[in-house]
Formats: sequence, C-alpha cells, structure tokens
Amino acid sequence: MTTMDTRKPQAQPNAGVTDAQRAEIDEQRAVSSPTRRATVAAVEEILYEPLPVLDHGFVRVIDYMGDDAAVVQAARVSYGRGTKRQRDDQGLINYLMRNWHTSPFEMCEIKLHVKLPIFVARQWIRHRTANVNEYSARYSILDNEFYIPEPEHVAVQSSTNRQGRGDVLEADEARRVQEILRDDAMRAYAHYEQLLNEGPDGSAADPEHPSLARELARMNLSLNFYTQWYWKTDLHNLMHFLRLRADAHAQWEIRAYSDVMAGILERWTPMTHRAFVDYRLGSEQVSRQGMEAIRRMLKGEAVTAKDVGMSPGEWRELMATLETSEER
Amino acid sequence: MTTMDTRKPQAQPNAGVTDAQRAEIDEQRAVSSPTRRATVAAVEEILYEPLPVLDHGFVRVIDYMGDDAAVVQAARVSYGRGTKRQRDDQGLINYLMRNWHTSPFEMCEIKLHVKLPIFVARQWIRHRTANVNEYSARYSILDNEFYIPEPEHVAVQSSTNRQGRGDVLEADEARRVQEILRDDAMRAYAHYEQLLNEGPDGSAADPEHPSLARELARMNLSLNFYTQWYWKTDLHNLMHFLRLRADAHAQWEIRAYSDVMAGILERWTPMTHRAFVDYRLGSEQVSRQGMEAIRRMLKGEAVTAKDVGMSPGEWRELMATLETSEER
Amino acid sequence: MTTMDTRKPQAQPNAGVTDAQRAEIDEQRAVSSPTRRATVAAVEEILYEPLPVLDHGFVRVIDYMGDDAAVVQAARVSYGRGTKRQRDDQGLINYLMRNWHTSPFEMCEIKLHVKLPIFVARQWIRHRTANVNEYSARYSILDNEFYIPEPEHVAVQSSTNRQGRGDVLEADEARRVQEILRDDAMRAYAHYEQLLNEGPDGSAADPEHPSLARELARMNLSLNFYTQWYWKTDLHNLMHFLRLRADAHAQWEIRAYSDVMAGILERWTPMTHRAFVDYRLGSEQVSRQGMEAIRRMLKGEAVTAKDVGMSPGEWRELMATLETSEER
Amino acid sequence: MTTMDTRKPQAQPNAGVTDAQRAEIDEQRAVSSPTRRATVAAVEEILYEPLPVLDHGFVRVIDYMGDDAAVVQAARVSYGRGTKRQRDDQGLINYLMRNWHTSPFEMCEIKLHVKLPIFVARQWIRHRTANVNEYSARYSILDNEFYIPEPEHVAVQSSTNRQGRGDVLEADEARRVQEILRDDAMRAYAHYEQLLNEGPDGSAADPEHPSLARELARMNLSLNFYTQWYWKTDLHNLMHFLRLRADAHAQWEIRAYSDVMAGILERWTPMTHRAFVDYRLGSEQVSRQGMEAIRRMLKGEAVTAKDVGMSPGEWRELMATLETSEER
Repeated sequence: MTTMDTRKPQAQPNAGVTDAQRAEIDEQRAVSSPTRRATVAAVEEILYEPLPVLDHGFVRVIDYMGDDAAVVQAARVSYGRGTKRQRDDQGLINYLMRNWHTSPFEMCEIKLHVKLPIFVARQWIRHRTANVNEYSARYSILDNEFYIPEPEHVAVQSSTNRQGRGDVLEADEARRVQEILRDDAMRAYAHYEQLLNEGPDGSAADPEHPSLARELARMNLSLNFYTQWYWKTDLHNLMHFLRLRADAHAQWEIRAYSDVMAGILERWTPMTHRAFVDYRLGSEQVSRQGMEAIRRMLKGEAVTAKDVGMSPGEWRELMATLETSEER
Repeated sequence: MTTMDTRKPQAQPNAGVTDAQRAEIDEQRAVSSPTRRATVAAVEEILYEPLPVLDHGFVRVIDYMGDDAAVVQAARVSYGRGTKRQRDDQGLINYLMRNWHTSPFEMCEIKLHVKLPIFVARQWIRHRTANVNEYSARYSILDNEFYIPEPEHVAVQSSTNRQGRGDVLEADEARRVQEILRDDAMRAYAHYEQLLNEGPDGSAADPEHPSLARELARMNLSLNFYTQWYWKTDLHNLMHFLRLRADAHAQWEIRAYSDVMAGILERWTPMTHRAFVDYRLGSEQVSRQGMEAIRRMLKGEAVTAKDVGMSPGEWRELMATLETSEER
Repeated sequence: MTTMDTRKPQAQPNAGVTDAQRAEIDEQRAVSSPTRRATVAAVEEILYEPLPVLDHGFVRVIDYMGDDAAVVQAARVSYGRGTKRQRDDQGLINYLMRNWHTSPFEMCEIKLHVKLPIFVARQWIRHRTANVNEYSARYSILDNEFYIPEPEHVAVQSSTNRQGRGDVLEADEARRVQEILRDDAMRAYAHYEQLLNEGPDGSAADPEHPSLARELARMNLSLNFYTQWYWKTDLHNLMHFLRLRADAHAQWEIRAYSDVMAGILERWTPMTHRAFVDYRLGSEQVSRQGMEAIRRMLKGEAVTAKDVGMSPGEWRELMATLETSEER
Repeated sequence: MTTMDTRKPQAQPNAGVTDAQRAEIDEQRAVSSPTRRATVAAVEEILYEPLPVLDHGFVRVIDYMGDDAAVVQAARVSYGRGTKRQRDDQGLINYLMRNWHTSPFEMCEIKLHVKLPIFVARQWIRHRTANVNEYSARYSILDNEFYIPEPEHVAVQSSTNRQGRGDVLEADEARRVQEILRDDAMRAYAHYEQLLNEGPDGSAADPEHPSLARELARMNLSLNFYTQWYWKTDLHNLMHFLRLRADAHAQWEIRAYSDVMAGILERWTPMTHRAFVDYRLGSEQVSRQGMEAIRRMLKGEAVTAKDVGMSPGEWRELMATLETSEER
C-alpha cells in the first residue's frame, strides 16, 4: 500500500459546473445560520465548492456531522462535549484506530455531491455501506460530457499485474487512443440526442420521427460519460473507502477521487486523519510467515522465502516493504 | 396499526441525569457557532436536552444533518438548495414516500443519546441499519438505576395476542409485582457492588476480598437495569423504526421511546413527518383478498371471509379497519 | 403495482452460453451427492441451467439454502425440522408475512449467476443487501454481446410517467432505432478490440501499436453490453427485490429478470411465494386519506378527492385500484 | 492477537439439550437426500449436532452453502465448478485473502443454532452483517438455565487492561462468587415463575393471583440466563467475527464460542481456514511507526520508542510481537 497524497484540495471556481450552477452554489454559500452543533471551520470554508477531479468531474461537500471531538464524545458516551486536552483526544483516537474500534468513528457523517465517469461509479458503488442518490437517466437527459484520459495516464496492459496498467504510451500513440475514444463518444452522444429527438420546448426536434424513451436511448452512451450522485457515509466507512481506493491496485481514475477525499478528511477530522495515516495507510498487514521471517532476520539469521513457506511474489513484496521507506 | 401520538416532547430539566451531567449539558447548549449548513430552529431548541422516557430514561438529540429541503435537494441531485415553493416540496416528498423512494430520505441523519432498560435495548438493537456505541459494563460500572413499571402498565398475559399483554392488574396486585421486581433488582445491585468491591479510591472496599472483574460481575444484573448508548441513523431508517415500534404489537416500553422520537421527527422534518403519517402510520397494507372484498362490497355485494379466502382473524382485522376511523 | 407473471421459467439449452460453457454446466449437473440438509426437488431440477432473459442474458441458480420448512423452523427456533402439518406451516408463513416478520425469511439464501446488460446491472446493484462478485473488465476481456430491444419494446418517452416509456414505435421506426444502437455497439466493440490489440497468443495483434490496458479500453463500450455476476441474497431480500422490480414503474428490461426470478421463487418456496402474492404483490398500501375515502364510500357517501384531501393523481390511482380486479 | 485454538469440536450427545430435543435432532440427522449442490462431508458429519460451549450452551450447524471451491468459482465467475488443481485453488484463496478481496468469500453461507448467555448475546449481536432470529421471551417462557463460570475463569479486574480480567481468584473466593451468582439467579427464576403464575394446563398455578405478561416478567431475569437463536452469516463475515472475537481483548466467554466456530470453519473450508490463519489470525497490523522501527532495526540501528514516535504501550506491544513466536 502506498502512502496517499493528502494535499489540500484546491477549489477552482468553475470546475465541471455551468455558470447557472455556479450562481446557485454562491447563493447557498452566502447563507449562514447559528447552530449549537459541532462545526469545523476548515470544512465550512470549502462547503458546497466543487473540488475538481479528472477533466469534468468534482467532489463537493454538501454537509457534515461531527468532528474529532464527536468521536471522543461517542467513545465515552458523554453528556457534554466529552473532550479533554487535545493530547488526550489524539491518544484515545489512536487507541480506537489501533484496536479496530469502529463504532465511535461511525458517529460522524459526511455528504458529498460527486460527478464522475460511469465506469468509476461502477467501482465506487461496490461500497455498500453508504447512501446514494444518483441522477436518473430514465428521468433526465445526461449532459454531453465524457472522460478522456490525459496522455500521462494512457498506458499499456501491465504484464505483472493482470488487472492494472503498465508503461505510459508514446505521445502519438496516446493521442491516437484519445482520438478513438473521443470520436466514439461524440458519435454516441449525437445518436443519443437523435434518438431522444427532443426540441427545446419539449416537442419533437424532428417531427418526422418519434422521441425515444430516455431509459432506452441512454443505453447508447459509453462508460466514460459522466454521471453524478449524492453520496453519504460515516467516517469509518469513508476511511475504509480511502484505504481500499488509495491502494496501488486501484484504478488511477478512482484514486484521483480518493485523493481529493483524503484532503477533505484531513480538513474535517485532522486527528483521525493522522491516526488513519499511521495505523492504516502507512501500516502493513504482515502475514504469519512474514512475521516469522522478520523475527528470524532480527536474530541475525539469513532467511529465504522457502524457510518460512512464502511464495516468491509475497517474498518480493515483503522485501520491498522492509527496504523501502521514503518513497512509500 | 395505531396512529402514533406525535405530541411535542417536553424537556424536563433533570430527567435521568445528575447535577454534574446537567451542568455539562448546559455548558454545551450555551455555545453557538455560525454554519453554512442546513439548520432547523425547532431542533436547535431542544438540542442536547434529555427528553424523559419511563422512570429514569431519556432521549437526547446530539446532532442532525439535513432537513426537509435536503430530501428535495438530494432527490433532484441539485447544485443549490434545491427547494422551490413549499407546496411543491411537500408534493415531491409525498410522491417519494408513496412510491417507496428511500434514497432521498437516507440523505438526512440524526444522532441520539438514549438511556433505556436493557430489555428494551435488546429489542432496539435488532434494527441493524444504524450506528451504535453503547456504554461498556466491561469497562465501567453501571449505575444503580432500574425500571419499575407504573401500575397502569402492569398487565396480565394477553389471551388473544400470544406475545402481548392484556388487562391491567388490580392496584394491590400491581404493587406486589413492583415489590418483587424492586427487591430483586436491589439485591442484584447490592451483590454487584459487593463482587466489584471497589472503594472510592480504586482500592478494594473490603480488603478481605478480591475485586471481581467488571465483565463478570455485571452478569448478576437483571434486564430492567438501564444502559445507554449513542445511536445514529438516517431519516428513512428512523421512520422504519417508528413504523415498526409504533405498532400496537410492539411492547409498550419501546413504544414510549418511539413516541418521543416521533415528536423529534415532527420538529426536525415537518413535511416528511406529514407524509409519514399519511402514507405509513395512518395507511393500511390491504392484502389481495382484502382488496377483493372491498371491491365487491363497494359493488353492493354481501361478502364473507370465506368468499375471498380469508381467515377469521384477518377478516376481523379488515372489518375493524374499515369501520373504525376516529379512534385509530 | 401489477400482479407479477409467475410462469415457470423454461430452460433453453444454449441460452447465452457457448458450447464449452454448456459442457461445463452439464458436467456439473451430472454430479450428485447425499446430504442431510433441506433439499428442494423443483430447484435441483433446474440447478445450474441458464434460464434465458432478453437476447443474450440468463439467470442460473447456483446454490440455495433452506426451503419453506426452514422459515418455519427458524421462526420457532426449533431443534428438529420444526414443521407440523402443511396447513399450519402455510398459516404461520402467512402470519409472518402479514406482520412484517422478516427474520425467519432471512434464514433461506439463494445464489444466482446472472448475465445482464450493464444499464440493468446499474439498477440492480442499488439493492445493497446482497453479495455480488462481478466479472472484471479490468482483468478480463468482455465478450462481443450487447442488448438490442425487440421492436415490441421500443417505445416513446411517456408523457404521463416522466421516468417511463409510452406507446410502442411503428415497425420501421423501431428498426431504425435498432440499427443505430447496433451500429454504434459494433463500432464500439471493434475499437475496443483495436485498443486492446491482443493477439491469440497474448502478444500484440498489430505489432505496430501497443496494447492498451483493459481497464482503459473498456470505457469505450456502451451501456447495453452484457456483464455477468454471481449474486447471492436471502429470501426476504429476494422478495423485496421482486416487489420493487415487478412494479409497473420499473424499467421493462429489469422486470424481465424479475419475472424469471419470481418463477424460481415459486419453485423454491411455494408457500412463501403464495403469501408473497397475497400480502405483497397483490396487496395495496392504502394511504390514510384513501382509507378514509373507502370507509365513507362503504357507508354510502359520495366522496371526492377534495373531501379527503387527495391530489387528482392519487385519487385516479385509488379509483383504478378499487374498480379493477381481473386485469391487475 | 493470539493464535486461536482451532481444535476440532467434539460432539457430546446431550450438551444443553433435553431428551426430547435429542430425539428430534437424531430424527433429522437420519434423513438423507441427493443433491447437485456442493457438499462437505466433514460438515455433514456434525450437521445438527450440538457442540457444547460453557455449562449449558452449544453451537449447532443447521445448514451451509458452498465450500472452498465455491469461493474459487465465484472469484472466476465460472460456468462450471471453477476449480482446477488443489494447489492453484489454495494459491487463489491466499491471493484473495491477502489482498482483501471479500466478495468471493461472501458467496458461502452458514446457519447456526446457538444457545448462549444473554450477556454474550449482547456482544455478539453487535456484528450487524448477519441474520438473526432469537427465541422470544415475550412469546415463550425461558428455561431455568443460567451460566456460572468455572473457578478457573473467575478472575479479578485487570489493572493493565481496563476492560478485561486479571489473575484468577483463590478457590474459596471463586466458590463464594459462584454462590452469590447462583443464589441470585435461582431467586430471580423462582420469582419469574411466580409472576408468570402459569399452571401446567395454561391456567393460573395459584388462582389467587393473576398471570403477569411474559414480556414484563422476563425483566426480572439476570444477564447470565441462556437465550438461543438461529444465526446465519457468510464466510467473510464469519471470519471477521472470529478475528475480532478470537482476540485476547475479547471476553473469555464469547471466545469459547469463537473457538468452537473456528473448528467448524476448519471442517467446512479447510483452504480458506489455512489462509485465514496465515493472513489474519497469525498476522500483525504493524503501524507506520512500527514499520519504520523494524526497517531501522534490520539495518542494525538501535531504535527507541521515541525515535519513531511511538507511545510506551505501543512499543511494548511491538517488542512482544517481534520476540515472541511459539507462544503466540
């Protein structure tokens, strides 16, 4: 597992949103009300802002419940704020994370508005412990927006990792791939519109032809078209998502979302984020055999994969883990 | 199903809380911060307040996410607040409720602190789609608080409903039941303390004896002792809980909690509450046979249970549903 | 809600499977072992058989746990088989269904292998209480199979139901739609293969170009391509799925799967299926206002939508429910 | 985390069951039917048998779905049995376990009948991803069976682990604890019966007094009384349960159940069990700081807790992990 890039997300004014949408967002950002609830200034700062991902996607924080102190408060089943000195709180959060106490982290919740390519949405939805409300292409018309990977992400099939990508393509080959993808997506959308055959006033654009049902026409669109949804989950499951999707085995496109969400996590619950980096992202699950190897190596023995019954692949991974440090 | 009592809960200053806890609550209530998030004044008003239930229990709202407009906003996957005229919002919420669209209601979340007898907690926990963090009797010592039913709730085993209660006992018989329950609970707690054998400073109260592990001593307590937990769920699952627990088949003690929570629902999301009353609580699920009977009766036929293949019990229930109105 | 077509599914020897797959299936069907577990002859009969759906899809029962008696056994927390006379078992199952006791139905489990268009898979996956393992297009190459609707299912956008379809298209218009969909799917697949650029022996088919990573190439495919997965759920959640997907509001293509699965339900647990038809599929959820209207109509009053506070749409639906009988 | 005792469970003819229940079990065990489904001889052997736990509890396997090959079959989304050579299957299962691929393991399911003290049931139920149907004390009368710990498990409160137990009590002190627990449980049950006041024929035992509702009378029972339930979960979640409950931090009484269930796991899916021992039970989650310490120690550096920013407690745990081997 690689250490995640936890850079703070940069809000870009018009990432993936129209001017009308931008105006709606600004209007909502302008309203402020007093509350007795836990608030987090660093999240309020970016609330409702589209944080750009890929060429047309974004992540927007729509709402949040709780903060680091709420984790502590729940763990103690407190009557008041439940928090003591900051140092004690970090200690308790570390303890909870280390010992896989998940309930206190479930007591915080976050709601996001995400715009993402359909093939990314298909991976994302496999995380079942979340609430989702997706834009309906049965009910509404999808926008003409599709994902085309940047040349630096257009790569060959990996020869070692059967579900991943290997070396990046030469510039002209990457361009060729982009062109094929773009042409097909544009043709697909043109036909989608032709099948829908809806004029600006709702009547048929071309009166010679019928207006095909939206739920049928949409099947002509390809998996790189953008969809969007409201997605809500708790802090524990957010971290579970980030842990799996920040992994080097995850597809680069979903990791791009995961990176932005890790930045949100850091803003929202900095103590929990720190414990997450120490006890999850930066940690290693070392197998029974791996522990045996480490113990014997620490005693000065020269150990081989065979000595402890590990496969060559596992051994390579273990050795990489034990030698590398900075780059990970 | 009976129509639920949706009375507004009355905050009582010291319901089930000590003076020290009361002070912690007041301190937390005194703090106010600005937020860009959706806020609900009627919930802010009671935030953190213990709303009393049974003799020592309570429900406290600790946090909430979203409001009626957030349901609408999620349903529309909106960029802004998503709300139009109030009348349209109620119409959309009714539509969603009627057609079992659950996702938009899952976009609101509430967190409660609940103090409740263990036998109620055992029923409550069967609702799996919620987050729970319970006070640990392995780690901490339970308080000397147990539930004794008021005479008006001490009733005989029902002869018609094999899992319910029937007529209320005579006053002196009810008192006798209370005394048995109270004596046993007091003896159980005295022995619990004796087994724990913990002095005020943490050393043994009685140096002649050891201090039994808390996780063992607690098994001597009976099911009417109070426990407490933080419980967090979404608006959809809250209504699911209320629908099942407001039912006449539910045990009276858990309905007492359900009633208070219905009052919270009404404060939090009044439009959703209205739709809930119309399309869930006050509605009836009429079976295929029941619909057949109604159709034939409306045509003027005299229909019997046998004509439509219903059991006598089902027929009685259907007739009660069709005749009663006000009392339900 | 419309009454579901519960016809027994017809196994067609080669529905959506290759000869090699057919041979594998036959081989597995040929093996029989003794077991002490509950068995259901009518399911054993179709075990592993692909039951055809749409033009290339299927549903195969891979495994099942329990039967009607297992529902009864769980409800009684029995030591033995738990079953009494058949009539008592049906009565208990009816009681459980009527009173929304879900746990006993969760004690049966079924595992299916399903081949389905991606846009159907995207609706299906919204049912979260199930286990899914999908064929990975990051790891493997998708087959050149896509869904083209039959002319009788090619329809215009509905004018009354904003998320549904209305009248079927004229024959030549339907053919035109099919052609557009087919041409685009064929071009998409040709480009997919060109991007993958994999020769029969794993080396590049065209040595002039690189082999694009599978996880990237697949984004060029459209939503009518077929995917497949193993899907496992319990009896309660299977019925929940069928109830929602058998609804007239569900897209026709997913209802086609739902119909076949209802046939499987009937084979597997005939008593539960009967109760499901009576208390779910054929039943009606009548709102508080609807019940008020029915009560007043039964007393002979002439009632209008306005009298009971119903919207015109709801009133129309209620009237249809009360008048119709046979067609539903 | 300690290595779990994976001894094969020993069936004892009458563990916690009456003669009548024993006869029902024997009757069910005597029936055998042919099936095309995956079967596991080692589970068939113990099917329905009560495997004793604690003084009156048991675990009985009621049904199972799938085997090791079914994990492989689901991972490959196979048409046939999906299995190749045994060595390849173990390799794939190891790979899945190592890389946290959970879906294939979710494709196997097991159903247990468990008799357990209520305080154990209260811990157990926190695992939400399972189906449960509990014996209802609202509907039925609980048996006069309660748990009394054996002297070797009666221990003092731990001074280092605030939620655990420390040294075992002296024999006479343990006996004293047992007596207090037994006396209170016996009195509680006697009063329970007195409150129920049910004669053998259903009429009041003592006609002078009413028969209190069962749902009320049961609140007088203490937490060491036995309850029972049907509990069903998938292979992935079974292992998750075992991993948490086999931990040294878990209460001994629930570990007693966990040990028996680990034996069932070994019988049912021996390859998965092996991978579970290697990659979960015997593995260690080493924190970022812990990995840093190991890397530096392997380079020959003398490292302290402070050097890598670990707390004294964490450092102690790490050192114990690195030195111990056999005992763990």
